[in-house]
Amino acid sequence: MYAFQNDYSECCHPAILKRLSALETEALSGYGTDGICAAAANKIRQAICCPQAAVHFVTGGTQANMIVIDACLRPWEAVIAADSGHINVHETGAVEGTGHKVLTAPAKDGKLTPVMIEEICRTHTDEHMVRPRMVYLSDSTELGTIYSKAELTAIHELCRDKGLYLFLDGARLGAALCAEGNDLTLADLPRLCDVFYIGGTKNGAMLGEAVVIPNPSLLPDFRYQLKHRGGMLAKGFLLGVNFDVLFTDNLYMQLAAKADQAAARLKAGLLRLHVPMLADAPANQLFPILPNSWIGQLRQNFTFEIWGQNDPEHTCIRLTTSWATSSEAVDALLTAIEECQSQIGQ
Amino acid sequence: MYAFQNDYSECCHPAILKRLSALETEALSGYGTDGICAAAANKIRQAICCPQAAVHFVTGGTQANMIVIDACLRPWEAVIAADSGHINVHETGAVEGTGHKVLTAPAKDGKLTPVMIEEICRTHTDEHMVRPRMVYLSDSTELGTIYSKAELTAIHELCRDKGLYLFLDGARLGAALCAEGNDLTLADLPRLCDVFYIGGTKNGAMLGEAVVIPNPSLLPDFRYQLKHRGGMLAKGFLLGVNFDVLFTDNLYMQLAAKADQAAARLKAGLLRLHVPMLADAPANQLFPILPNSWIGQLRQNFTFEIWGQNDPEHTCIRLTTSWATSSEAVDALLTAIEECQSQIGQ
Amino acid sequence: MYAFQNDYSECCHPAILKRLSALETEALSGYGTDGICAAAANKIRQAICCPQAAVHFVTGGTQANMIVIDACLRPWEAVIAADSGHINVHETGAVEGTGHKVLTAPAKDGKLTPVMIEEICRTHTDEHMVRPRMVYLSDSTELGTIYSKAELTAIHELCRDKGLYLFLDGARLGAALCAEGNDLTLADLPRLCDVFYIGGTKNGAMLGEAVVIPNPSLLPDFRYQLKHRGGMLAKGFLLGVNFDVLFTDNLYMQLAAKADQAAARLKAGLLRLHVPMLADAPANQLFPILPNSWIGQLRQNFTFEIWGQNDPEHTCIRLTTSWATSSEAVDALLTAIEECQSQIGQ
Amino acid sequence: MYAFQNDYSECCHPAILKRLSALETEALSGYGTDGICAAAANKIRQAICCPQAAVHFVTGGTQANMIVIDACLRPWEAVIAADSGHINVHETGAVEGTGHKVLTAPAKDGKLTPVMIEEICRTHTDEHMVRPRMVYLSDSTELGTIYSKAELTAIHELCRDKGLYLFLDGARLGAALCAEGNDLTLADLPRLCDVFYIGGTKNGAMLGEAVVIPNPSLLPDFRYQLKHRGGMLAKGFLLGVNFDVLFTDNLYMQLAAKADQAAARLKAGLLRLHVPMLADAPANQLFPILPNSWIGQLRQNFTFEIWGQNDPEHTCIRLTTSWATSSEAVDALLTAIEECQSQIGQ
Repeated sequence: MYAFQNDYSECCHPAILKRLSALETEALSGYGTDGICAAAANKIRQAICCPQAAVHFVTGGTQANMIVIDACLRPWEAVIAADSGHINVHETGAVEGTGHKVLTAPAKDGKLTPVMIEEICRTHTDEHMVRPRMVYLSDSTELGTIYSKAELTAIHELCRDKGLYLFLDGARLGAALCAEGNDLTLADLPRLCDVFYIGGTKNGAMLGEAVVIPNPSLLPDFRYQLKHRGGMLAKGFLLGVNFDVLFTDNLYMQLAAKADQAAARLKAGLLRLHVPMLADAPANQLFPILPNSWIGQLRQNFTFEIWGQNDPEHTCIRLTTSWATSSEAVDALLTAIEECQSQIGQ
Repeated sequence: MYAFQNDYSECCHPAILKRLSALETEALSGYGTDGICAAAANKIRQAICCPQAAVHFVTGGTQANMIVIDACLRPWEAVIAADSGHINVHETGAVEGTGHKVLTAPAKDGKLTPVMIEEICRTHTDEHMVRPRMVYLSDSTELGTIYSKAELTAIHELCRDKGLYLFLDGARLGAALCAEGNDLTLADLPRLCDVFYIGGTKNGAMLGEAVVIPNPSLLPDFRYQLKHRGGMLAKGFLLGVNFDVLFTDNLYMQLAAKADQAAARLKAGLLRLHVPMLADAPANQLFPILPNSWIGQLRQNFTFEIWGQNDPEHTCIRLTTSWATSSEAVDALLTAIEECQSQIGQ
Repeated sequence: MYAFQNDYSECCHPAILKRLSALETEALSGYGTDGICAAAANKIRQAICCPQAAVHFVTGGTQANMIVIDACLRPWEAVIAADSGHINVHETGAVEGTGHKVLTAPAKDGKLTPVMIEEICRTHTDEHMVRPRMVYLSDSTELGTIYSKAELTAIHELCRDKGLYLFLDGARLGAALCAEGNDLTLADLPRLCDVFYIGGTKNGAMLGEAVVIPNPSLLPDFRYQLKHRGGMLAKGFLLGVNFDVLFTDNLYMQLAAKADQAAARLKAGLLRLHVPMLADAPANQLFPILPNSWIGQLRQNFTFEIWGQNDPEHTCIRLTTSWATSSEAVDALLTAIEECQSQIGQ
Repeated sequence: MYAFQNDYSECCHPAILKRLSALETEALSGYGTDGICAAAANKIRQAICCPQAAVHFVTGGTQANMIVIDACLRPWEAVIAADSGHINVHETGAVEGTGHKVLTAPAKDGKLTPVMIEEICRTHTDEHMVRPRMVYLSDSTELGTIYSKAELTAIHELCRDKGLYLFLDGARLGAALCAEGNDLTLADLPRLCDVFYIGGTKNGAMLGEAVVIPNPSLLPDFRYQLKHRGGMLAKGFLLGVNFDVLFTDNLYMQLAAKADQAAARLKAGLLRLHVPMLADAPANQLFPILPNSWIGQLRQNFTFEIWGQNDPEHTCIRLTTSWATSSEAVDALLTAIEECQSQIGQ
């Protein structure tokens, strides 16, 4: 069985386990106040060229999103997202669970634009409606697309003008930054975003996301909020170890590049086979649209996610690659699809 | 430096890391739907003699508490706890953050009694007050004390009569069950509690708590709540691995017994030296009351928590042992205290 | 100045003030436990032909909605509404403030259909998404449209099949039931809805909405929830007086009929003048689409709400009638519009 | 039957009904944006000598408390109250329902002191505990006691030093300010409190509490919060009418003085009869402690609240007077108690 189900199926990169093993029974300070977390945070600050940034580690993306958004908003304030945004669809109402409405715009390719944001601001005029106060976007998005520097800058400027916080969900940030066509860098983010997180779980970490607050005075009590919402890990040093390893010798980017390369090979093969795609996705998620009749056969040897019914005869699936995806797996999948074409037909 | 700060300073028991290493790049199903979690849950069901129980894994105790309590209560319902209870003091209002009041009774030794619970029920008479609906207790408690089978049974019976859920916080359940004088077993819990959790973080796990719902029809949608409150780990199999290892060959109890034995040796030494204690604590936490003047000297070689000022001249400290506490550490601490006695005096 | 701004601009029908005056300094029991509330509830039970229904009074619609919805749902559950629904647009996120997501379907005329509801159910498949658990609809809707008995019955049946509660927001229920073409009666509601409220504020009451729970065992603790969410009025008898008067000698329906008749005359006039409308609205709200250039002139003598920009040259306005709208006001408005047509042009 | 049950049993002072009747079918702007609310707010600003204060009207005390407290606090912040405080006991967890913990100190006479507040601050030391951020106190208190200017000033100064907001619940503010021994004035409050409310419901209003924010920049979005929490009344002008009348010709203070005078006569009589009291209460609530055997007999002709069992043989009751309490009622009650003494004995 070859795995294209997601990018968090494997335990972690071996270097992380090796480092954890080296800890043995060393006694470390609790709740992220240890030296390893401090070192990891420093490496992140260096990587993003923002020496004053506050860095906090949490165990997962939904947790990061709900904790950050709720920390920034007052009860009557709302967050703007693409309708396909993770917080809107796939977090079981976690943001609403902290009391805040998610305002959405239909975004065909998963990306927000200034026009969408302005329209929401324009139609929220008084105290009988929630006040838009934050923009949430994912890079790469839930549809595998990415933001260019110009696009993110335009949103940043609009947010500044409108008094909106800009929050970037970087669950798949590595895949975005290593994608073909990307012109954003880690160092751009502290300048363009009020808060963002660097995803570990989906890029080789055992677990962990690094929440970055470029201007720490924005959220001075963030550790209170972490604990209040159940997001402070007793053994915080585990998260520190993950990010310390990932941000040593550029491993974070190397792993993301590996995932993207596997996806690029897969994409090239699919295009060669004239398989249509839901979106032009340059990162580590592809959304080919296949005849329904192929699905069963492909499932015999490959795991992947059913994204939705595109039309009565066609199903959109999600193929996700990771640092651990082998060339063999990519080749096998392309071969299998070719076989479907020749044996089953469209 | 010898560590008595807490029981979650070390990474984990080596068997867990070994098992994680063996996973290599095996692709596992996400969010706890993998086979390892299933196997771990089965081992727990066997250990507690409750084949029908639902078992869910979360990353920490505060998370377990807020998720369980909020899942059981309606908005206007409240949970009863000892005033020293973890949910009342040390969770930054996480339970209130989900909308529920914590009703407390002063409990000198950290233990709730039927009389305390009845008094709270008696004084909450109508819809102008919250409705008490759950009893929360910790075993072992935040003061290192434990419940006897008779005590827990009496509370269980009162809860049944009053229509209260009984929830046992087992962050240090192993230490309770291995403590001198304990007569409770794992198999008693599903019969006496509506929901409880078996703590991994403080008993050798890398991370993880196992929430057990003996009658799953009580909370059929628990996985929705897990996700809604940010408590569903993408790589749920990590938690499965921890509990699978801990519930193989009785490792969970062995590690707890080691922690308790270290505490027992320490306690015997302290009693021999006539050091007074805050409570008669048989598990892995001791609360000696020391002259203020000793603290600085002890801190040079030992880590521990300052619990509070007992009187102007005396400080209560918390000494916690774990499966990793060495005999050497215990002896060193006792020697150091003896030196304080002879050099500094009371 | 003639008022078409809304249907809650006047203090109340004189019979209510008269009844309040008659109370003088009579001492009444607090929090709705008085005899007047009991009498009013009985009259409502008779009017809806549901002797076992629980009836609770609150001061406003947003309060009714957030209290009812939150009382019915568990934290991870969501409510389905038309995108134009009051809870989605005009309540400043009150429902989300109690922790619940509002799932919406685009509804051109403000009305939900079984197809829309089924589509939302179909795409909410697992615990990574909120669970749809309630359908919220307004009759009459925010666009002045109404549900037929067949339409409401179809939604009722779908809800029963899907395990969804059906909640009808009756802020303008009177106007719906007295509208031309309506075939629903008060007595249909307890059979078709799990909970609904009969709006007083917008139909002649000084203040008050009557929440009706046909099967009281659905929400046995509703008074706790009322208090918990700030919705229990100390002088609950005020609300009782309002509904006791309104449900005596059919006054409630008479007032609604008066409002609808004024709207019908206005509508007939607008159609005669070939003024286009946003929706075919038979109740007490009309949404004519006017050239932008008319707005300023009309505002000199009439109050109304700007609903939105229909296209760059046309504005949609909302004209609302009430029991207190005079024929003179209707005539004056029609004359003024005719003057705009002749003097300004389209 | 003579009423000593509470101070909100009567509809309202006749002047308010008269003023409401005079409105007839005048169309007023909704949601408190009308001229009457503006006029009432101005009169309140004059009465408190604070021309810049923001004044908002809500329908009840629990609503005022939950809306104000939640508006001021971030999720992890808590409010300090006396254990007898209304928010802690009699609001069905409304404050916790907005996510905030209520930290309490045992206060025998219902009054907080700087020592109590300091102790709570002292023991809340880090991010594992909620952060105390507001002090809530009631004047007069739930036990009928009042704060002196020196006491309130001392708390004010401590709050300023500790960075705590000071919020005064004035549900019975009139009764406090007219009580024997009181040296506070309305004009002191804006200087000493960050936010407070002037209670109407319990002092002759039909309904309504006036929330005052002396420095409006503290809560610029308060109207959003009002709506978000269900506290914005469509016919806000009703509340405006109440306060406009009450703050014309000093009626507010006159009504409070009447209530206090009735209580003072009652208290003098009780002391003459050597009836013991729970607290030395100078305002409009008295808490005599009576032999259990008297209760049934007194209940035949008087309404009052049972406050609690003082000891197995004695019951504490609450006697509340209002502007509508007659001398005849006071005399009748004193006579009845005297009869209990002579006929039944202690």
